[in-house]
Amino acid sequence: MKSAVVLLSGGLDSTTTLAIAKDMGYRAYALTILYGQRNHIEALSAKKVAALLSIEEHKIIELNLRLFGGSSLTDDISVGAHVESRVNEIPNTYVPARNTILLSLALAYAEVSKADDIFFGANIHDYSGYPDCRPSYIHAFEKMANLAVKSATLGHHIRIHAPLVNLSKAEIIKKGCALGVPYEHTHSCYDPRDNLACGSCSSCFYRRKGFIDAGITDPTNYAPCRPAA
Amino acid sequence: MKSAVVLLSGGLDSTTTLAIAKDMGYRAYALTILYGQRNHIEALSAKKVAALLSIEEHKIIELNLRLFGGSSLTDDISVGAHVESRVNEIPNTYVPARNTILLSLALAYAEVSKADDIFFGANIHDYSGYPDCRPSYIHAFEKMANLAVKSATLGHHIRIHAPLVNLSKAEIIKKGCALGVPYEHTHSCYDPRDNLACGSCSSCFYRRKGFIDAGITDPTNYAPCRPAA
Repeated sequence: MKSAVVLLSGGLDSTTTLAIAKDMGYRAYALTILYGQRNHIEALSAKKVAALLSIEEHKIIELNLRLFGGSSLTDDISVGAHVESRVNEIPNTYVPARNTILLSLALAYAEVSKADDIFFGANIHDYSGYPDCRPSYIHAFEKMANLAVKSATLGHHIRIHAPLVNLSKAEIIKKGCALGVPYEHTHSCYDPRDNLACGSCSSCFYRRKGFIDAGITDPTNYAPCRPAA
Repeated sequence: MKSAVVLLSGGLDSTTTLAIAKDMGYRAYALTILYGQRNHIEALSAKKVAALLSIEEHKIIELNLRLFGGSSLTDDISVGAHVESRVNEIPNTYVPARNTILLSLALAYAEVSKADDIFFGANIHDYSGYPDCRPSYIHAFEKMANLAVKSATLGHHIRIHAPLVNLSKAEIIKKGCALGVPYEHTHSCYDPRDNLACGSCSSCFYRRKGFIDAGITDPTNYAPCRPAA
């Protein structure tokens, strides 16, 4: 049985990715990296879904990317309600070098866990413009990884899997439901209030739309609406 | 005046690299990542040399790679005294995916500092076998970086500089002395005792040999010898 490291934020995409890796027959080592503003709720969700999906091991690592800032997720910039992005406009939720940092830590964990496979929930459709979700980026990371680590010098081949990369949110949700993903314990919101999803940020917008498009009831508890400040 | 991020551990190689970047005319943003067993002494040395080399900014970030282990620098494995490595044998001081993690964080810092250049002190000679010090690895990281970040999508080109990569330790020391590197404030030891270099680990071995080969007095304070346990 092969082993894989799965990057797990506790969100909809990463939890579905974990379920796919397990369905493909991998022993799963989940890695949660707490880097931003939602540490408490991310840690809670990741722990819950990791326990429910019966994985080998779950590691949680803290990394204070607020030291750098440069994103509404790691700085005192308002996330704001969802607005349609212009083509090629990268939203303010872009975190500088985020996926490179997350995959690098997954690469370290993979090497010590004797896993040659790394899964992450990158997706190009809903958040058009994140450069580190593109297939060309993922291939370049994989190539670099195979020059970076000791295990590759010993004949192992590192593979970076992004099974959701070309799926719509509705397709992801349908796939996850078929695999029994406990979506009620996942969180997606960029700006939660009292542990409830705000319902209006881009992440909530695409999650809600995804459930509607999939024709599946959204189990998320959204915060009551409030007047604009 | 162009800006560069320089990975600075406070050791001989990284401090020389910082001096080279400054000599090349870059405004330097130094980044120290405390990931292992020598956090206290590394932070002290990095702060000292950063202050002496008058840089723009110095950020220190903590990252507990002991969570993963797998190295004598991040786990309870003895570093041991220097022994000659066999060809292609990677020493136990290899930290899984270390340079990939460090460069990824440097890439994030570069993007928020509007720097297109990243310097680090990789060197292939003294520590034969570290895969993530090879020029092929460095080129692959650079290629990946240019697909990863928003600034690259806006026309910037990220460059990874490893100016020491092919130099011997003696050549590094001669170059650093010519640039006024305060080597007395740098540290290299893998296994310091009461903040003094042990004198016998591989890092101390190559440092001592480097000063001898360069014909330059070694300003390091080594710990008194002690009987083997």
